[in-house]
Amino acid sequence: MATQAKPILYGYFRSSCSWRVRTAFALKGIDYDQVPVNLVKDGGQQLTEQYKELNPMRQVPTVKIDGVTLSQSLAIIEYIEETRPSPPLLPASPQKRAQVRMICDLIVSGIQPLQNLYLLQKIGDEKVSWAQHFIIRGFEALEPILKQTAGKFCVGNEISMADVCLVPQVYNAERFKVDMSQFPTIKGLNETLLTLEAFKVSHPSCQPDTPEELRA
Amino acid sequence: MATQAKPILYGYFRSSCSWRVRTAFALKGIDYDQVPVNLVKDGGQQLTEQYKELNPMRQVPTVKIDGVTLSQSLAIIEYIEETRPSPPLLPASPQKRAQVRMICDLIVSGIQPLQNLYLLQKIGDEKVSWAQHFIIRGFEALEPILKQTAGKFCVGNEISMADVCLVPQVYNAERFKVDMSQFPTIKGLNETLLTLEAFKVSHPSCQPDTPEELRA
Repeated sequence: MATQAKPILYGYFRSSCSWRVRTAFALKGIDYDQVPVNLVKDGGQQLTEQYKELNPMRQVPTVKIDGVTLSQSLAIIEYIEETRPSPPLLPASPQKRAQVRMICDLIVSGIQPLQNLYLLQKIGDEKVSWAQHFIIRGFEALEPILKQTAGKFCVGNEISMADVCLVPQVYNAERFKVDMSQFPTIKGLNETLLTLEAFKVSHPSCQPDTPEELRA
Repeated sequence: MATQAKPILYGYFRSSCSWRVRTAFALKGIDYDQVPVNLVKDGGQQLTEQYKELNPMRQVPTVKIDGVTLSQSLAIIEYIEETRPSPPLLPASPQKRAQVRMICDLIVSGIQPLQNLYLLQKIGDEKVSWAQHFIIRGFEALEPILKQTAGKFCVGNEISMADVCLVPQVYNAERFKVDMSQFPTIKGLNETLLTLEAFKVSHPSCQPDTPEELRA
């Protein structure tokens, strides 16, 4: 029997953090299995005791890979990068790597946690304007940064973790009806990235758990 | 004239994200200059146009190093690790590195942004119970993770970025009167870490901008 099992991704089709990991797998050509965790059905399947054993934070994604169970999307992607380095998702130069990680962290710490499902459930009625506020605040910072760092992609002309984080955040922005014409650099990069196969196959519109009415 | 200038840290004595970077510099024995950015005086010095040029997100820390300007504390620390690898702040094994980054990201994305100054200003009257809620939620996830990964420090017996992130988050928890006896693993690690010189010299109680009445 082969012991080299495929990685398993516990995720949700519409979770932007799950989408980051799906894209990283796709860019590196890594085959994996998906186990859907429905964040809204049954009051949220991530809240079960069984799932909590895998992910004490009760969030998606979780990945089982190489005998370890990992959570936190960027930590998972850095692990994939270190163990499956080709094609790379970080540039060679330390300065450019730092720019990539700065963009990732701005999104992953500075925007997404302030507009995710758990937080918005606590906010209640004002949740749309709350989400818009924090996405716009983040994009107002990201736009001038990307204007300096971007070539064809977020940092220069090579695809990186920054691109993997950008696209799902723009998807969230559009769900919350943020006017993206304010952010021409972000908008242009997103449009370019969405033409790539790795973003298409990992898109929320075509996952195993995507409901019929939301399928592309 | 020497062109190899010392790094400059733009930070605030009580900012947990600034403290992370101060500790990383201290652990690696890197000499640096500090420029205080007072987050409350004058309505917040991080909001000036001058500072926005350095950090479009209008947050601390920002670091000028090796001719580049970087923001986002973890991106800064990863850059320091890549360019000044000794002593290391990441273990050698990819699995253990992933555990370190998972712990860092749980704090940096999953706790801190939900209790930071900007957010709490938006929350208003309920800010203390809000901050407690999100810190306790995060620590309830972190405690069982650390129970599995910790030795003397967060991951095994070598100090890492995870420790650098943990201590400032416990400091915030204590400011918001979270009962730390619920989290014996976190509490014990924090007590051990606070005995180390690198955490002492970077502590909010002894920075250039620490007000007289808060000095240790």
